[in-house]
Amino acid sequence: MLKAQAPLMPASQHSSESAETRTALRGSRPRDTPPAPSQLAFVPFVSVDNMMKIVNQIGLPTMLREMSAYLEADFERWEQFDKSPRVAAHSKEGVIELMPTSDGATYGFKYVNGHPANMARGFQTVTAFGVLAKVSNGYPVLLTEMTILTALRTAATSVVAAKYLAPAGASVMAMIGNGTQCEFQVAAFRELLGIESVRLYDIDRHATDKAVRNLATSGIDVVACNSAVEAIAGAQIVTTCTADKQYATILTDDMIGTGVHINAIGGDCPGKTELQRALVQRADIFVEYAPQTRIEGEIQQLPPDHRVTELWQVINGDAKGRSSDGELTLFDSVGFAIEDFSALRYVHDQLETTGHFTKLDMIADPDDPRDLFGMINRAGSA
Amino acid sequence: MLKAQAPLMPASQHSSESAETRTALRGSRPRDTPPAPSQLAFVPFVSVDNMMKIVNQIGLPTMLREMSAYLEADFERWEQFDKSPRVAAHSKEGVIELMPTSDGATYGFKYVNGHPANMARGFQTVTAFGVLAKVSNGYPVLLTEMTILTALRTAATSVVAAKYLAPAGASVMAMIGNGTQCEFQVAAFRELLGIESVRLYDIDRHATDKAVRNLATSGIDVVACNSAVEAIAGAQIVTTCTADKQYATILTDDMIGTGVHINAIGGDCPGKTELQRALVQRADIFVEYAPQTRIEGEIQQLPPDHRVTELWQVINGDAKGRSSDGELTLFDSVGFAIEDFSALRYVHDQLETTGHFTKLDMIADPDDPRDLFGMINRAGSA
Repeated sequence: MLKAQAPLMPASQHSSESAETRTALRGSRPRDTPPAPSQLAFVPFVSVDNMMKIVNQIGLPTMLREMSAYLEADFERWEQFDKSPRVAAHSKEGVIELMPTSDGATYGFKYVNGHPANMARGFQTVTAFGVLAKVSNGYPVLLTEMTILTALRTAATSVVAAKYLAPAGASVMAMIGNGTQCEFQVAAFRELLGIESVRLYDIDRHATDKAVRNLATSGIDVVACNSAVEAIAGAQIVTTCTADKQYATILTDDMIGTGVHINAIGGDCPGKTELQRALVQRADIFVEYAPQTRIEGEIQQLPPDHRVTELWQVINGDAKGRSSDGELTLFDSVGFAIEDFSALRYVHDQLETTGHFTKLDMIADPDDPRDLFGMINRAGSA
Repeated sequence: MLKAQAPLMPASQHSSESAETRTALRGSRPRDTPPAPSQLAFVPFVSVDNMMKIVNQIGLPTMLREMSAYLEADFERWEQFDKSPRVAAHSKEGVIELMPTSDGATYGFKYVNGHPANMARGFQTVTAFGVLAKVSNGYPVLLTEMTILTALRTAATSVVAAKYLAPAGASVMAMIGNGTQCEFQVAAFRELLGIESVRLYDIDRHATDKAVRNLATSGIDVVACNSAVEAIAGAQIVTTCTADKQYATILTDDMIGTGVHINAIGGDCPGKTELQRALVQRADIFVEYAPQTRIEGEIQQLPPDHRVTELWQVINGDAKGRSSDGELTLFDSVGFAIEDFSALRYVHDQLETTGHFTKLDMIADPDDPRDLFGMINRAGSA
């Protein structure tokens, strides 16, 4: 049902410009007039403020639903994409990553940091921005904040996976870790999977209180719990989303029975995991892109040849998702570049209808493309 | 002499903000007030227009001199940097690359495309933008156009290399390929190496004519030539900067005598070279970062163990530059991330003094860093 809503037209086709168009955009200008930037110099930019306007205009549930459709469409054509593990610069404080991919027509990348100690210092743990560009000429067609967008795409990815992996009729979700991502997960699982009740737990009660407040008018039944054990009671879906950069044990093997789906999204870099090894070993494991997940996910605890299934194979029918009621499924999610690509593609497609963007003079565009030097000189004498 | 001008303070120290500063910047705001972006949300942005203002305010020769000093300072501390070959997405039309590096305190990356057919279609062959960020919290501190900046840093890098490799007293340079980079090279070699005469050649006479026009008031003697052979007559330095993505032979072995320095900057990706193999083989070869140059540079034509010297070793005294008048030296330059880092660091240090930047609302920054969801909601009800 989701798939019908996912236009597959690459972003590039929306903004294709022939040399003729370009001349028309530019008009004719005498050589000695100081250059005003042509339309080619401008890259549409979605600020944080404009991203909030887009979310509020479209509505969060609708946006999560539509973005899930883009994600699912891109997972279906997974084999068309350039894939490589992200390029990470690790430091003692955290990590800065670049996550590029391309479908041959459109190129996208995300800049994202992960700094667990940031929150205590009043900064975001994760901030991000991203770019879409045309493969044919290398020109960017979108620059956008992606802190908010990453929160949305992560929730949308989780729920796409759960659609194939969670037990049928699941209505209760435990949410362990009530930080930035928490309410987005809840909103996505309510909108797309029909979750009716969510059981929250965080080692920091203030985080849980914040989530309870934010979800008060969401129409979902919210229960604040005092422990992880209390939170998972009766839950068919257990989502872990904690931020500590360490080998943590948020869930132990004895806590989880049969027939549960674990949506593990907090363990996402080397040395950062959330689940006890025995629990990971017992589960049927689904991942985004195995070469990256073996480095960054829960399965970094397992031998490098441990059997895992890539989610795209389930979505396009090459592999099975959940196959029995009693199965313990684990979506070992670390976030992959193609998900950001889908999110960028979605935002790019909302620019025209919402109008919530500005234009950045980011690409130097002299009249004669070889005459950058002359362009600077003429600007100077203006 | 250059070194004295190069402050080594990382960009991060200029914009460090403690948690206390942050609170002060933000002030106190009642919870239900719609969020106005705090200072943390803003990333200084240098547009193309502002980059031209910076160049024209500082003056191109001064800027090339100062940037060379930053480059030389960073080459000297080469071993402090994270180094990896760039991440390239190749297509039949060209390439899109991400070039990240870090010195442990500051992280930088450049997005750059290279599309040889762009020029004929009215687009730039190379466009770029770049980012500096603080390693300690992952927050960007600068977003800037880098099309102009790349032209400057490439010229500055060439002249830093030539300082160590060109024959003493060189006064004549041949410039083969008169595209975007041409006049920047000439300006740098005039300012920093005292070149008095430049001999231009391009297969497209219009390109040469453009360079002649732009250099008319530069004070350098400019000679337009009808062939590469004519251009190199009497030149102690031969710069090749052509854009065709192919194994080209701009210079053959028999064209170049002894005692010449070749500054080869056009051959910079797999399958794109400018020099005949025999000529490369005969030269003493200097490169930026051997693992990358062996893939992208002229030396992709030679066996992977062919002896080369990295430029930083010459600059910090670990290796010899030119050692005799008769030596044939080759700077096989492909452009490396650390050079962009130096250029970004330089621009970051000019923000305060020139004021030529704007502030982009690019980083989501809720009052409570965990409350991204609440921030969006409050913006919606405002």
